Amino acid sequence: MTKHSAILLLSCPDRKGVVASVAGFIFQHRGNILHADEHGDHDSNTFLMRVEFDPSELDLPLGDFAAQFTPLAKELDLHWRLALSDKRPKMAILVSKYDHCLVDLLYRHQSGELACDIPCIVSNHPDSQRIADFYHVPFFLVPVEPQNKLAAEQQVLAMLQRHGVDFVVLARYMQILSEDFVNAYPQKIINIHHSFLPAFVGAKPYHQAFKRGVKIIGATSHYVTNVLDDGPIIEQDVVRVSHRDSIDDLVQKGRDLEKVVLSRAVRWHIENRVLLYGNKTVVFE
Amino acid sequence: MTKHSAILLLSCPDRKGVVASVAGFIFQHRGNILHADEHGDHDSNTFLMRVEFDPSELDLPLGDFAAQFTPLAKELDLHWRLALSDKRPKMAILVSKYDHCLVDLLYRHQSGELACDIPCIVSNHPDSQRIADFYHVPFFLVPVEPQNKLAAEQQVLAMLQRHGVDFVVLARYMQILSEDFVNAYPQKIINIHHSFLPAFVGAKPYHQAFKRGVKIIGATSHYVTNVLDDGPIIEQDVVRVSHRDSIDDLVQKGRDLEKVVLSRAVRWHIENRVLLYGNKTVVFE
Amino acid sequence: MTKHSAILLLSCPDRKGVVASVAGFIFQHRGNILHADEHGDHDSNTFLMRVEFDPSELDLPLGDFAAQFTPLAKELDLHWRLALSDKRPKMAILVSKYDHCLVDLLYRHQSGELACDIPCIVSNHPDSQRIADFYHVPFFLVPVEPQNKLAAEQQVLAMLQRHGVDFVVLARYMQILSEDFVNAYPQKIINIHHSFLPAFVGAKPYHQAFKRGVKIIGATSHYVTNVLDDGPIIEQDVVRVSHRDSIDDLVQKGRDLEKVVLSRAVRWHIENRVLLYGNKTVVFE
Amino acid sequence: MTKHSAILLLSCPDRKGVVASVAGFIFQHRGNILHADEHGDHDSNTFLMRVEFDPSELDLPLGDFAAQFTPLAKELDLHWRLALSDKRPKMAILVSKYDHCLVDLLYRHQSGELACDIPCIVSNHPDSQRIADFYHVPFFLVPVEPQNKLAAEQQVLAMLQRHGVDFVVLARYMQILSEDFVNAYPQKIINIHHSFLPAFVGAKPYHQAFKRGVKIIGATSHYVTNVLDDGPIIEQDVVRVSHRDSIDDLVQKGRDLEKVVLSRAVRWHIENRVLLYGNKTVVFE
Repeated sequence: MTKHSAILLLSCPDRKGVVASVAGFIFQHRGNILHADEHGDHDSNTFLMRVEFDPSELDLPLGDFAAQFTPLAKELDLHWRLALSDKRPKMAILVSKYDHCLVDLLYRHQSGELACDIPCIVSNHPDSQRIADFYHVPFFLVPVEPQNKLAAEQQVLAMLQRHGVDFVVLARYMQILSEDFVNAYPQKIINIHHSFLPAFVGAKPYHQAFKRGVKIIGATSHYVTNVLDDGPIIEQDVVRVSHRDSIDDLVQKGRDLEKVVLSRAVRWHIENRVLLYGNKTVVFE
Repeated sequence: MTKHSAILLLSCPDRKGVVASVAGFIFQHRGNILHADEHGDHDSNTFLMRVEFDPSELDLPLGDFAAQFTPLAKELDLHWRLALSDKRPKMAILVSKYDHCLVDLLYRHQSGELACDIPCIVSNHPDSQRIADFYHVPFFLVPVEPQNKLAAEQQVLAMLQRHGVDFVVLARYMQILSEDFVNAYPQKIINIHHSFLPAFVGAKPYHQAFKRGVKIIGATSHYVTNVLDDGPIIEQDVVRVSHRDSIDDLVQKGRDLEKVVLSRAVRWHIENRVLLYGNKTVVFE
Repeated sequence: MTKHSAILLLSCPDRKGVVASVAGFIFQHRGNILHADEHGDHDSNTFLMRVEFDPSELDLPLGDFAAQFTPLAKELDLHWRLALSDKRPKMAILVSKYDHCLVDLLYRHQSGELACDIPCIVSNHPDSQRIADFYHVPFFLVPVEPQNKLAAEQQVLAMLQRHGVDFVVLARYMQILSEDFVNAYPQKIINIHHSFLPAFVGAKPYHQAFKRGVKIIGATSHYVTNVLDDGPIIEQDVVRVSHRDSIDDLVQKGRDLEKVVLSRAVRWHIENRVLLYGNKTVVFE
Repeated sequence: MTKHSAILLLSCPDRKGVVASVAGFIFQHRGNILHADEHGDHDSNTFLMRVEFDPSELDLPLGDFAAQFTPLAKELDLHWRLALSDKRPKMAILVSKYDHCLVDLLYRHQSGELACDIPCIVSNHPDSQRIADFYHVPFFLVPVEPQNKLAAEQQVLAMLQRHGVDFVVLARYMQILSEDFVNAYPQKIINIHHSFLPAFVGAKPYHQAFKRGVKIIGATSHYVTNVLDDGPIIEQDVVRVSHRDSIDDLVQKGRDLEKVVLSRAVRWHIENRVLLYGNKTVVFE
């Protein structure tokens, strides 16, 4: 992603002339289109588009873009938003005991792979405090006990809102979120599930995979919805296993999968490359 | 697999000295061990072993091997069998309309990849007659209609038995086999399912995968049991897909998967590389 | 690829407004853009674009497209061409003794995967005559001996021209083509090399790979230029090997790679998805 | 690897009875064979074997194993050594500026994936001090300047010897080692090269790969010999790239490869799974 670029994301009923009209609008206002990707879904008759353009010579202030673009958007029946690569979104990370995804995300963030800010890490275990401190990221411990689940979740939610969080990453957070929590961040909670969904939904997927005797295991990153492990899939990857692999080996091989799959999904989300239609995603890589 | 080799396959309760005793027996009788693979499964306390040896200087006729080996086998509580690479097993292929797996198997067979004989191809569609003729393999049409399903299956079964078939490959055979049929060839019917099992069991898995929005599709070859798509998995493989792929694209990409996955499973079966324990397989590649 | 679509392929010096201008032209003439892909290469300051549109309501005959489009093309300094999905290109296949790629291409062609015509197969070995006959494709035997290499090649070239061949596929054709031959079909000869180029250029790559002890082998499909195994790469794929694999095993595993890699490259070429810049390709999948 | 196991590694000229004799020796002394892997290389007529056994009921002290085993070893002309899983080898890590492999190895070490001790990290850059401190691993800065290369290397070598280092990992260490250094740790220096060797030997492999237009990039872990990037390959892996990937993207994708490939090689080395024959490795996974 070029620095100082603007990204226009849109979806609309499929019809003639959308590319031409939108590209024309940007060109007339002296924007320079850097990339344009689009996808037409026949089943739902939906057209989706991502246009990245250089706004440095734009003949209107970006603050006025919406007002100027709205007539065209209405004509074409567009759902749209404009994202600026300069504006770094705020990402909260929720984690439980397994910290490999957390450690991986923090290292990538420091390396410049993830163009976001991290106002807070929240955990129900104290162990990740040390690594959070190492990377100078505020860490908050919110223990979750059977009798205080809802109160704890409310506390987490309040913290996210206080920090102005834009999206939430569940980096092996072992608590199931309530409907209210999910609804507070619609299509803005990214989970990593340690199986090749929809195989092995729910608890202990490596144990399930071991028992079934599969020859390949996987990991899946998806947006969280109110149906367990059923949200729109952003990314998946797999690795080969054999009878020589114990459950511990699956867990170890799976960790490497989980890290790369989650980090790709997070990066694509940050770079505004993921669009939703129905329960599916388009990823404009 | 070396020509003129003997393969000893065995499983037993895990205990000390199995490798030494079995290897010792072969050595004392002047067999030359070419490969030895073994696997211990802790959960079921089972030990599995495959020993391939050159019997050309053996000091006993292979016909006497069983008698000589039995005392040791009893002592170690072995389930075992001896296979000779010289003896080509007889494979029947059952196929319906989609013929890509059939065509692939026939080409591999002709190329020498599959060390078996093919006494018959059976289909409920006439279309594959031509390719069977090309490869000089006897072809039998057994139409299946709702009202004659059982009779048709009996006819197929009789044909397999008449041809002395050792194992059966379902190369996209779209009929569900009865319990009787499956029981007639226990762990000797190999199916190809066009999904990454256990995801998308049953009919139209590519449609299911498309609807779920997965980013990777797969194919699975497994032994057939009396639970649909639940038998021991022999081999799986996957390929990446994206929002750009229509259902037709999934089907096309999947065909390439199905061919290689099924052909690997068939080859390993022929070369006596697959051992079963519970509902899982060891593949000694 | 939708039937009855038109594909506009273009490259030009990178500048503002290309997408808007080209999309605008198509829209103004009532073409419906189905897909648009583009790529900007910073090093060479080149912009490449592929636009697929439905011309069924176009307000000008496709025969007049060039005349109407030329002023814009001149203004933007475009190299361009228009391809129609209706017009099936003519593909010649050259093959020597190993016929797995040939057999694979013929099956895919018959299955509808490859939207081309095959006016001729040319071989320096007689063995493929039978499979060519099976698929009703004309087969020509042109033996190549050390003393007649040039004359044989002239004979092949004449045959291709007589059949109006648009592009040539070397499906494991073991003869090195002369500069004249290559120049007669610039960027229209597709080869499959049985290694992961640029590793193992030249003869016997599987033997080279075996000797080097690599853990992964590959296959590469590329356009042929006058430097051996150095032309623009269209597609590559790989498979894992181990110490257990003999050279014969590499050859066998490699065959499966060669087939899929070559067939993908051929399909993308047919569907006008491959654009060249310098010695590299853009593949608009 | 089971705790408290003993691993017998051996190679010898291929001959009859090696498996039986070695397994028999262990069994007679009441060792329980847990795993046995072997490989026969026809070209060099070499037989290689790895036997992992439980020595807890062994009827001789492990200290006497050598004396007892030597007669058999002489008879069979074995090169052999016995490793104990209890004895953790000492690994030194050498690193320059890019620290992703270092950070990855330290995390895996802490997680228990790598059963070794790390007496020292040596770097020619000060930046990794902080992460070394975090994991409580001694860090030594040895700056390398053109005029002091040899002296600096001597200083590193002395430090490794002082710490009793068993093997050395070059975790993106950008200095070429002298012949003396390499000879001091024969087959005990593991490097990660950021290409799919033998493609792109030497400097800036990602730039070379970008220029060549490959569709897949790789990483290779190998033992260091006195020929640059030519030592025995332990592990390789690859990832797909496209025209959309800039050099920076290759570097970023490559980092993930380098980490997993190096860590696998290191783990297999630690677990005594890697045997050498000629310039090739057997990895008994």
